[in-house]
Parts: sequence; structure tokens; C-alpha cells
Amino acid sequence: MSKLFMFEKPIGMRDTFPHLYKMKQEIRSKVEQELSTWGYEFMETPALEYDETVGAASAILDQQLFKLLDQQGRTLVLRPDMTAPIARVAASKLLKDRNPLRLAYAANLFRAQQREGGRPAEFEQIGVELIGDSTVSADAETIALLVSALKAAGLEDFTISVGHVGFVQELFLQIVGTEERAEQLRKYLYEKNYVGFRQHVESLSLSSIDKQRLLKLLHIQGNDGSIEKAEALLEGNGGREALRELEELWDVLRDYGVDEYVKMDVSLVSHMSYYTGVLFEVYADNVGFALGNGGRYNNLLRQFGAEVGATGFGIRMDYLMEALNTEKTENQPALILFSGERRKEAVELAAEYRRAQKAVIVQDVKGVSNVDRFTAGFSDVHTFIGKAGDQA
Amino acid sequence: MSKLFMFEKPIGMRDTFPHLYKMKQEIRSKVEQELSTWGYEFMETPALEYDETVGAASAILDQQLFKLLDQQGRTLVLRPDMTAPIARVAASKLLKDRNPLRLAYAANLFRAQQREGGRPAEFEQIGVELIGDSTVSADAETIALLVSALKAAGLEDFTISVGHVGFVQELFLQIVGTEERAEQLRKYLYEKNYVGFRQHVESLSLSSIDKQRLLKLLHIQGNDGSIEKAEALLEGNGGREALRELEELWDVLRDYGVDEYVKMDVSLVSHMSYYTGVLFEVYADNVGFALGNGGRYNNLLRQFGAEVGATGFGIRMDYLMEALNTEKTENQPALILFSGERRKEAVELAAEYRRAQKAVIVQDVKGVSNVDRFTAGFSDVHTFIGKAGDQA
Repeated sequence: MSKLFMFEKPIGMRDTFPHLYKMKQEIRSKVEQELSTWGYEFMETPALEYDETVGAASAILDQQLFKLLDQQGRTLVLRPDMTAPIARVAASKLLKDRNPLRLAYAANLFRAQQREGGRPAEFEQIGVELIGDSTVSADAETIALLVSALKAAGLEDFTISVGHVGFVQELFLQIVGTEERAEQLRKYLYEKNYVGFRQHVESLSLSSIDKQRLLKLLHIQGNDGSIEKAEALLEGNGGREALRELEELWDVLRDYGVDEYVKMDVSLVSHMSYYTGVLFEVYADNVGFALGNGGRYNNLLRQFGAEVGATGFGIRMDYLMEALNTEKTENQPALILFSGERRKEAVELAAEYRRAQKAVIVQDVKGVSNVDRFTAGFSDVHTFIGKAGDQA
Repeated sequence: MSKLFMFEKPIGMRDTFPHLYKMKQEIRSKVEQELSTWGYEFMETPALEYDETVGAASAILDQQLFKLLDQQGRTLVLRPDMTAPIARVAASKLLKDRNPLRLAYAANLFRAQQREGGRPAEFEQIGVELIGDSTVSADAETIALLVSALKAAGLEDFTISVGHVGFVQELFLQIVGTEERAEQLRKYLYEKNYVGFRQHVESLSLSSIDKQRLLKLLHIQGNDGSIEKAEALLEGNGGREALRELEELWDVLRDYGVDEYVKMDVSLVSHMSYYTGVLFEVYADNVGFALGNGGRYNNLLRQFGAEVGATGFGIRMDYLMEALNTEKTENQPALILFSGERRKEAVELAAEYRRAQKAVIVQDVKGVSNVDRFTAGFSDVHTFIGKAGDQA
């Protein structure tokens, strides 16, 4: 086996080295703490689920699923998201004890990648699901919690774009008539390909008024008046309820005092097909991808036999860390180097350090091939070498 | 899809509900803290590795590996242990910066099970690897650290059995002559099938003196004199170095003050084929399986091109939790129930709770289908319903 090959990892798989691990742990711990104080209880589900249940309920493309056969010949998937597994647990057990139900998770998710150098195929997501509550208060709570969690993590400059599946869906259907054509338009939007959207709209055989209705959608921005402008694009009654919900949502977000982080974006859509209402995405200035996203998914639980609405969000730990761009905190352990005769002194000094919660390495000098090189990696070094009384 | 089926999980897969999750998190955190103060740095490796590299280096039986094909047609495995992945990372990167190297992990491992109701197919292990140090000091450090970590987790009654691969191996080869026959004997020992061992020994065509040498092995117990008794079973010089190492190890463990937790067991063997020297297992009184195990594996790093010795251990979180048998700590959140008119008051009271790091749920009464049932689940309840001034 060549040396290069034996170090290889599958496409999109990464090692997390100690300094990054520590940063990640600190950030995770702050976010967990915040989600817990809002009454969200953490749980864990298996990495492997049946494709027929959780795989089918997930919104992730089939080609992104890692699949395998179990010994009984049934197809398993590595979980591509946590929303479907948590829906399974809520429907089968937890909703019986409490409804609405507030659950949280910090878990690695798996999405197969086509090529090296692209996105990670395994990444950590931390998030919540609020199940059984269909009020706008629930939508607002998850957005306010997302703001709180990101602030707790230390993030300052970020924006949560908020829209509503029902508005865009109704507008597109009014204009292009079929779900298939509406999906084409949505695709440009969730790929943020506004040039493509414009070109596609121009190519459609629509009246110039209808083309204008579609193109104007891209120009509705800002928190003042955007709902009125959106409403002006609609004809008839459809889609207005979605806008009423956005209005109410905005009021609640102001009560929470988080409106400064929120940007109404009535053109927001998602590739997550299970969203049914309010949806949102969070962006930080310095990261190209959404740090997190969420929204209402009122039909998913039905696939597990429970007729309840739900909303939630997930934060990508990797992108959050990139956004935080934290300095490495070098909290180096002390080093106690000893030779056999003075082992006991070394062990005793180490115990003192550890009682004070200070990290210390106790190293037999016989076990080190290059002592100078090894000790150069530490700034607090004690040596117990040779006869007693020789401590350097 | 029948309701029963849609809730099903793959064989050996479990959900971890909130109260258990919390207990597990608290225990993990104490153990992590202890491993960190001994200078072990935590890291993470991917759940999926190439079968040809990490799969082949693992000591887990092939039939226990979860395997899948990637889109390039190469075989991937879900990591069945952390020792091989960490050896990969150490050899490819980290040993260049520090040698000896102290690494730690807390990770879920995957081992396929044949039937439901058996052992879990996914379980968390927390452990360390001390790579690049072949001294007995390193063996002793991992054992002393295991004691410290278990005590930090709150465990009091446990015993670490310590043996040496080299002694049993030499004794068996001296008597039965071939590796194949020696393996048959070892198998009875690592299955703890002492009756089977005895019967097998009786069935062998050996002199009665040699049979006695094998049978006496089972009776060598206790920390006083067991090494001398073991030595009396040997002929020639082979195997004596292993016993010298055990003697030295015992001295070091006394310096660490952990000898009361250690039981010398010269008949100890393992099914983990990569062990080459000192090895150990930890048992608590009330749990049928080893909570953890470890030992020296001086040849594994060679498979990743590094000629260094190593030792380490892993603790099974599930068995440790069983051994601790902790009471559930019911740290229930408070509940603030509101109606729309008084949302702001509700949100403000919640913010007070959260500033004091107290968990609180804020719930719109409109989102609750059965208010009596829902509130019955909480003991600290505030209501802001109707007009201002009506708080119950």
C-alpha cells in the first residue's frame, strides 16, 4: 500500500484536529446552553435509519444519501438530516407525554459528495424542532431563539432572511399556471441565480404585465413596506394569508427585540421540499453559505402518523465556526519530564496541577526519542531526572 | 406503511431520550475534563473510512463491519473503533509535531449485530491513545488515567484486570507448539469459558505435567506472588520479559496510588488481535460486560508507515452509565403561558429567567390543544392570559 493511499479518506470526509475540536466544543456548548434555557431538550437518534421510513421522509436528494444493505437485505441510510428522525421519535413516543414538544439536537449529518474539494460529506448540525404548535408565535420563537443562539456563540454580524412558502407559491401559480412551471422559477430563486431568473422570465410567453409581476418580486426589499409591495403583485385572495402571517410574525419578533437581525424577503424559497409556511435562512457577512436555515413543515409528521404542525431550524457548525473566525486559544498543558528514580515526585507534582484543573503531561524521558524537540513544544516544563534534588 | 413499521429502526439502533442524553452528557463531560487535565487532546475523525485502510487495520471481525460502496465503487466502512483512525492521523500528521503524542476521543462506533435485543450496533466510546512511547511508564499512565477517569465519572467499585499478551502467548507456544493450537486455547480464555478451557486441555495429547501447567494458569490470582507463580509455569527464557514488565508496571501503579483498583491476572487475553504487550479490562460489580479495555499495540502504527509503539484504552459510555446507575435529575423548565395581548410580558419574564440561566418555555395558549394536560407537566407555571393585570 503506498503511503499516500493509506492516509486517504473518503470524498468529503475530514479529520478535526485538536485545536479546531476545542473551538467547536466551546461553541457547541454555548449554543446548547442557550437552547436549553429556552426549554428545548436534547436527544440523539441513530446514525443509521431505514431508507423506507426516514430516508423517504427526508428532503435530501436521493443521490446525496449514503445507502447500504443490512444483513436482512433492507436498505439503510446514514441520516441526511435530523428533522425526519426527530419526527419519527416525536410521533412514536414523545408527543404522548407533551404537546407542543420542544426538542434539540447536535448531530453529524451525512450527504454524499461527487468530488473532492467540495462540500463536506459529514458535518455537524445543531438545531431545534418545535412540534405540535401551528401558531405564528411558534415561528417567531424559533427565529428569536436562532438569534439568541448565534449571539450566545459570539456572532455579532448576521442577518436572518424571512419569507413564506405560501406567498411565492401562490404568485407563481397565478402567473405561470402549473406546478411544474412554478418549480422552474423557484429553482432559480433557491439557487440565488437572479440573472437566470430574469432571462427565464423574459423567455416565457406571458403578458408584459405578468413578466413585470415576476421581475418586481426581486426588487422587494427592506422591512418597511415590503409586505404591501408583495400584496400588490397578487391578484384575487390567494397568498394574502401568507402575507398576514408574515406581518404578525414581524410584530412578535419586535416583542422579542430581535427585529434588527431580521430582513423580510418575500422572494425567499428553499430546496427543502417539506417547508409549508414561514421559512428563513441566516447569513453572516464573511461566509458564502447559509449558516443555518429553518421553517415550518406542517406535513412531515403526517408521514409518521401524527397530524400536527411543526417548525425548527438547524445551524451548520462548520459555517458558524468560519463566521466566528475565532482565534485559536492555545491552552497548552505543562510538561513534567522524569526518569525512573524520581517518578514518584513527578506523579505527585502532576496530581497537584490536576487538582487545580490544570492540564499537565507526565513523561518518562526514556519514552522520548528527541528530548529537545519534544520539550520545545511546551513553555511550562519541570524535570525530575537523575538523583533526587536535581530538579531543573 | 403500517404504523408499526414506520417507527422501526435498524437492528441494534437506539434513540437516546432527553433524560438519558443529559446524564450521558454530564458523565462525558467529567471524563473529558479528566482526560484533558492529563494532557490528552481531543480530536474527531470521520464516521466513514476506506475499508482497505482503516477497515483492514481494525481488530473487529469483518462480519461486524457496516460496509457500503461510494460513487467511485470503493468500499467504505463505518468506523468500528477509533484506534485505527487515530493511528492514521497520528502517522500522517500529528507525530511530526509531537512525539510521544497524547490524543483522546469521544465517538460513536458501529458494529453490525445479527439480531434485535442483542448488543447495540452503535455506541459511544471515550478513550485515549498514547502514541510513540514504549516504556512501561506509558502503560502505567493509561491505567492510572483510566482509574482517574472512572472516579471522576463517579464510579467507586471497579476492578482493572491487568495481564500481558507476551506471557500467555509464550506459555501456550511452549506447551502446544503451534500458533493455531495456542489460538484455540486463547479463545476459551477471552470468552471467559473456563470449563471449556479445562475440558479442552484434558482432551489434548500432552503430558500430565504440561496439562497441569495449563490448568494452573487459571488459579494464579491476587496481587501478591502471582508473578512468581506465573514464572514457575515457564520453561527456558521466553515469557520472562513480559513478567518483568508486569512487575515494573505494578511498582509504577503504586507510585500513582491506584494499586487498590488493579488486579494482576496473568491469564488475561483479548480478542483484539492488535495487542502486543500489557493489556487490561475494567469491570464494575453490577455490569456483565467490561466497561472498558485497553493495552499496548506496538505494530498497528506500522500499517500507516510509522515505526512507533502505542498504548491506549476505550470506555463504553453505555456500560459506564449502567454501572453508575444514576438517578434521573429532573431539572424541569418553568412554563410561561400567554395569549397574544400579553405576549410582551411573557417574553420579558422569560428573558429574566434565561439571564439567570434558568430554563423556561414560553408558550402561546393558542398553540396548545389540551391546556390542562400540557400545564400538568410543569410545576413552575406563569400565565399571562386575557387583559393585562390578570396574571394567575
